Amino acid sequence: MLGSTHGTLTTTARSARVLACGERAPGGAVHGRARDAADAADPACAALDVSGRPLHAPVPDLERFFRPEAVAVVGASDAEGRPHTGITRRLVDWAERVGARLHPVHPNRRTVFGLPCAPSVAALPEPVDTAVLLVADPLPVLAQLEGTKTRFAVVFASGFAETGEAGAAAQARLAEAAARSGVRLLGPNTNLNAFEYFREDLEGPAIALITQSGHQGRPVFALQELGIRVSHWAPTGNEADLETADFLSYFATLPEVGAVAAYLEGLKDGRSFLLAADRAARRGVPVVAVKVGRTETGARTAASHTGKLTGADATADAAMRQFGVTRVSGLDELQDTAALLARARPPRAEGVAVHAISGGTGAHFADLATAEGLSLPALSPRKQAELHQWIPDYLPVANPVDNGGHPVGDGRGRKIIDALLADPDVGVLVCPITGPFPPMSDRLAQDLVDAAEETDKLVCVVWGSPVGTEDAYRHTLLGSSRVATFRTFGNCVRALRAYFDHHRFTRNYRSPFDEVPRNPSPSFRKAQGLLRPGHSLSEHAGKQLLRAYGIRVPREHLCTSAAGAVRAAAQVGYPVVMKASAPQLAHKSEYGLVRLGLTSASQVRDTYRELTECALAEGVEPEGVLVCQLVDPGIEMAVGITQDELFGPTVTVGLGGVLIEVLRDTAVRVPPFGEDEARAMLGELRGAALLDGVRGRPPADSDALVEVVLRVQRMALELSPDGGTHRGDTGSGGLAELDINPLVVLERGQGAVALDALAVCR
Amino acid sequence: MLGSTHGTLTTTARSARVLACGERAPGGAVHGRARDAADAADPACAALDVSGRPLHAPVPDLERFFRPEAVAVVGASDAEGRPHTGITRRLVDWAERVGARLHPVHPNRRTVFGLPCAPSVAALPEPVDTAVLLVADPLPVLAQLEGTKTRFAVVFASGFAETGEAGAAAQARLAEAAARSGVRLLGPNTNLNAFEYFREDLEGPAIALITQSGHQGRPVFALQELGIRVSHWAPTGNEADLETADFLSYFATLPEVGAVAAYLEGLKDGRSFLLAADRAARRGVPVVAVKVGRTETGARTAASHTGKLTGADATADAAMRQFGVTRVSGLDELQDTAALLARARPPRAEGVAVHAISGGTGAHFADLATAEGLSLPALSPRKQAELHQWIPDYLPVANPVDNGGHPVGDGRGRKIIDALLADPDVGVLVCPITGPFPPMSDRLAQDLVDAAEETDKLVCVVWGSPVGTEDAYRHTLLGSSRVATFRTFGNCVRALRAYFDHHRFTRNYRSPFDEVPRNPSPSFRKAQGLLRPGHSLSEHAGKQLLRAYGIRVPREHLCTSAAGAVRAAAQVGYPVVMKASAPQLAHKSEYGLVRLGLTSASQVRDTYRELTECALAEGVEPEGVLVCQLVDPGIEMAVGITQDELFGPTVTVGLGGVLIEVLRDTAVRVPPFGEDEARAMLGELRGAALLDGVRGRPPADSDALVEVVLRVQRMALELSPDGGTHRGDTGSGGLAELDINPLVVLERGQGAVALDALAVCR
Repeated sequence: MLGSTHGTLTTTARSARVLACGERAPGGAVHGRARDAADAADPACAALDVSGRPLHAPVPDLERFFRPEAVAVVGASDAEGRPHTGITRRLVDWAERVGARLHPVHPNRRTVFGLPCAPSVAALPEPVDTAVLLVADPLPVLAQLEGTKTRFAVVFASGFAETGEAGAAAQARLAEAAARSGVRLLGPNTNLNAFEYFREDLEGPAIALITQSGHQGRPVFALQELGIRVSHWAPTGNEADLETADFLSYFATLPEVGAVAAYLEGLKDGRSFLLAADRAARRGVPVVAVKVGRTETGARTAASHTGKLTGADATADAAMRQFGVTRVSGLDELQDTAALLARARPPRAEGVAVHAISGGTGAHFADLATAEGLSLPALSPRKQAELHQWIPDYLPVANPVDNGGHPVGDGRGRKIIDALLADPDVGVLVCPITGPFPPMSDRLAQDLVDAAEETDKLVCVVWGSPVGTEDAYRHTLLGSSRVATFRTFGNCVRALRAYFDHHRFTRNYRSPFDEVPRNPSPSFRKAQGLLRPGHSLSEHAGKQLLRAYGIRVPREHLCTSAAGAVRAAAQVGYPVVMKASAPQLAHKSEYGLVRLGLTSASQVRDTYRELTECALAEGVEPEGVLVCQLVDPGIEMAVGITQDELFGPTVTVGLGGVLIEVLRDTAVRVPPFGEDEARAMLGELRGAALLDGVRGRPPADSDALVEVVLRVQRMALELSPDGGTHRGDTGSGGLAELDINPLVVLERGQGAVALDALAVCR
Repeated sequence: MLGSTHGTLTTTARSARVLACGERAPGGAVHGRARDAADAADPACAALDVSGRPLHAPVPDLERFFRPEAVAVVGASDAEGRPHTGITRRLVDWAERVGARLHPVHPNRRTVFGLPCAPSVAALPEPVDTAVLLVADPLPVLAQLEGTKTRFAVVFASGFAETGEAGAAAQARLAEAAARSGVRLLGPNTNLNAFEYFREDLEGPAIALITQSGHQGRPVFALQELGIRVSHWAPTGNEADLETADFLSYFATLPEVGAVAAYLEGLKDGRSFLLAADRAARRGVPVVAVKVGRTETGARTAASHTGKLTGADATADAAMRQFGVTRVSGLDELQDTAALLARARPPRAEGVAVHAISGGTGAHFADLATAEGLSLPALSPRKQAELHQWIPDYLPVANPVDNGGHPVGDGRGRKIIDALLADPDVGVLVCPITGPFPPMSDRLAQDLVDAAEETDKLVCVVWGSPVGTEDAYRHTLLGSSRVATFRTFGNCVRALRAYFDHHRFTRNYRSPFDEVPRNPSPSFRKAQGLLRPGHSLSEHAGKQLLRAYGIRVPREHLCTSAAGAVRAAAQVGYPVVMKASAPQLAHKSEYGLVRLGLTSASQVRDTYRELTECALAEGVEPEGVLVCQLVDPGIEMAVGITQDELFGPTVTVGLGGVLIEVLRDTAVRVPPFGEDEARAMLGELRGAALLDGVRGRPPADSDALVEVVLRVQRMALELSPDGGTHRGDTGSGGLAELDINPLVVLERGQGAVALDALAVCR
């Protein structure tokens, strides 16, 4: 039942969307945000959110890049032993194969491989779609391309951002030269993978491939040898101009693309990637990616390879999940998951039926599938009775179904498969075959292929033999475009999980970009006066900032005398909490600068003096002493803002108090996100059950916690230190970090109160 | 550098060990413990630990089982269309191939496939090593085998323990009949996999295979087609007699076995498995296993397949790690890890060098390897300079090494590989090749194979192409017995992790069976009087039990009057804690039956009355009120005992207090285990850092916590509800469950105090 995933979107509808944001204007700079600003002539493209980040990204028209009619090869050579000769040879072969006209360019050669050679790009016999620059210094050639109507340049040279600062500067000059000449540039540090030959005899939805390292795309490209269609390959290299997001956006608009597979080392710009993923999500186009950077070693090595930003891995991970990108670990999973998502239609039901020729195989597969979160519904007694017509009574058929060995002497085997596929609870049938026993497995494979032809449900087979040259595998299974064939149980269950998740995600997707605020809230006016560029705020000022955004804090007064403290205590009501307050005092409780439960004026008076002395002993002149209302006990959580080098402001929620440092039990999101994601953050915490109430405690006010997370997101956006035109003239800087800890979440209906806040301005 | 793993153990040494526990006496029962008791004539085999579990298990002599000279096939047939004809045909072929004499047995046939047929086993022309019973009811045949000198019976019939209680009873009768006739029995519910033909042309250490489901062993068996030697296959089926542990013990004694690969659904007896794993661990023989049962679904399905016990998965997982069994998830990992561990010599260094023809491939592999805990040491500046003789300067060679494309025109490629292998920090060289580019990858593969011939270090290659029919893979790489070839990055890094872990484990292994107590401690005498068979103990009695084992509890008195409580408070010292005490009161704090910090006689008097009334209001007549010393605050942990259906008593440690229920942050061990394991338990906790001191708190007394865990282990063993001959006559039952929570761990040097204890007797 593999077929077009998103047949409902017609090509026309897609094109209309593509056109909505028009073409990129020549002269647009490389940075995603700036580029959109350059598209300001089109109001839809000019829209920015309240943090100053774009809400739309243009889709570059890459049709002629991938299917060029005329290509120039600058620096072409056919001289034996020259480094470019091999590359030129392959380009000549490729052009012949795809029917493109190839024009060698070299100052000193008359012909190259028998083709007439132009002395310079200015002397080309016709405008070309793409100029392939093999030269070591592409900068002068880019300048010469101005006015030649060349649309694209592919730069092979390396030695740019991947080598450090000087290289990064050279890369910026390259990008500027490309922009001036009106040419979109691929590379530098890219390779021949943009000029591969794709099989044209394969049908069905294809995989489009994006790789930031050519060699890493090789196994996905090779899927064509297993009968899986691949339509495009963008080896993006250093992304001086065209970046991953551009290709992702473009591929998401193509009707033949069933899924995008990507190998990512870093990103040029977080927002442009999210906008591209959002485009794919809106269209239901699955995106599957390997993203290097789970470890320091990986991130460092990746950065030295193509010179990109890597950001925090947990943040990239969250961002990908928010926008429906399936992240996988290995290239094998990338192949298997992308192939499944590209080709399988949406599930008709969420249940998986496991059909095995051995009880052990069924048990093992069921164990792995259940651990991966797949649902294996027990078959109804009626269905079981039906199956027992063809399967001996002593074998269990509840699901997994143990057929005791696929019957080959008659039609029973096929009947079992059809009966399973006919079950309304079953959306996917999986048959794990751990090894060939040709008299049985050949027939089994054929029965599965035949049954798959006649159902709109997904049929998966795991061919577990390490040999992989068997006929049933090579010909019967891989020969079918209807059966999804895997080599390991693990990859099959992970791909199926991604399949169900993707379709659930797509069904429910509402783009957060449609709801993100564009203008500052009334809170912003109150807040901006509190920011102190380049400084941390005192606890008291930090809490005023929270209050400006409607986040509850205890009643409190900042007092500068013992007498004032006594008056304040009377106002907030006994018992009170007292704390020394100063911007420098971030970890007050460690220094004994917090006193709880003071019940009388004399205690308050004494405490005022003690706290002042303690602070002075720590070398800090306190701005005063806070006298605060004692808040009822509740669940201690923490909510905060940090800045990520890729994605800008992020919002974190976690268990608070001392435990947060020990357990690091936190969930993070990249704005913009909606209430559903804020709620999902709580579910990701290992300690989530604390909020539900344990040992007879009442449930905590999770709604209030979600509301705080959303208000903090609003702060993160409106006070973003690097954006927001609405405050370009205020000089108020921005909020770089916020740490509300503890945020006491009270019983349901009672709200949440921020007991302490650390705010750092930039 | 693949070769014999444990060349230091000579065959003679191994045989001596095998003989140490002699042969199994005829008539021994099936249960592991009982069987050892049957071997009581040999004192080494008769030894029991203090819980009554055996300390040694005999190694059955299975030489003739695996290499029989004469085999009878009972129920043999050559009549077309009969169910046993196909099986008989395959047995006849197999016997011819391995040179065994095959004797068909059937009451009504004169010949079967041209071989003379005996009417019954009594009429066999010679004593046979093995009788294969194809008959539906094997019981009468087993009886007939008595006195025929037949050593082994293989029972194909199913319908035994896997079908429920009646089947389990039939299986027990089968086991008894086998024992009476002096025959060791394989099955029932087994299959032809015991009679496979193994390639004899393959050299080097072999994989021996144990499977509780035949089909599940197929991919490991098929490794022979990739050039990896497999020497044995034991398809154990229901394990009425011969069980996984028997085969594991036996394989661990064979010089040709480099590793044991197992597919497990459950175990017949936990202790016999641990003793077998211990035997393998002592000899440094790696054991790699898939164990079904991570999920309820998996465990249930497995149980219905071969009718074994599954126990708690976390417990089985811990037991396997304690005894060095590498647990893997999938059959693909089983193949790859077992093949590596079988064939690779111990590492010369812990460092892994990654050699890639692409920076991206190196970055991705490094990321996955580091995430798996492998060490990728940065190469010295000197080594890097050496590599830059052959690799352009702009490419990073610190590790991973990016050679920018393997040089093929001259000898540079091989020099790079040799230079890496010569580095003293490098124990393993990995070259991930994601796809073939024959002009380069063919030479690279050959260079790697050649280099591996001349080093004693491990060379690994990942051949990432999904096609797998390429020459460089099929012939060059698989043709080498020196290179370990993988198909995925993931399986390579996981196998390497297992490789380093296995050798580290083996180097440091000290068998806990050598140190487990055989006789009860003096504590036992004090404790036994406190047990109340079939009941829970009150908190006070539970604490007395702890005190008997030297575990500190607060000073406390059980008081039955208000006046007594006041006197007790004066004795333990103010402030005091008071709690209602009764065996039925398990969760006192939820019912308000705990009061902290009482500072005066009048508070104590009032509290006594309140607690008594509260308990009565809950419908419980308290045995009194506990007046306890208030203990300084510390880290709240929990330590406990539970019973596992497979392994008997287990010991758990975790974060205590309310959080334990939310986070389930626990570590478990199966006794016997030593101090190193008790300490390792703490390291497994996600909240482990709490014990190190956070936010300026002093470190906690981890040594005291470890000591409590070991004392609790002693309790678990001595008071085990189902064992211990030392108390067979006391009628004191046993301790089924213990939950010390909270155990307050004080500052380093201050010890740990059990504030509450729940003990359940059986």
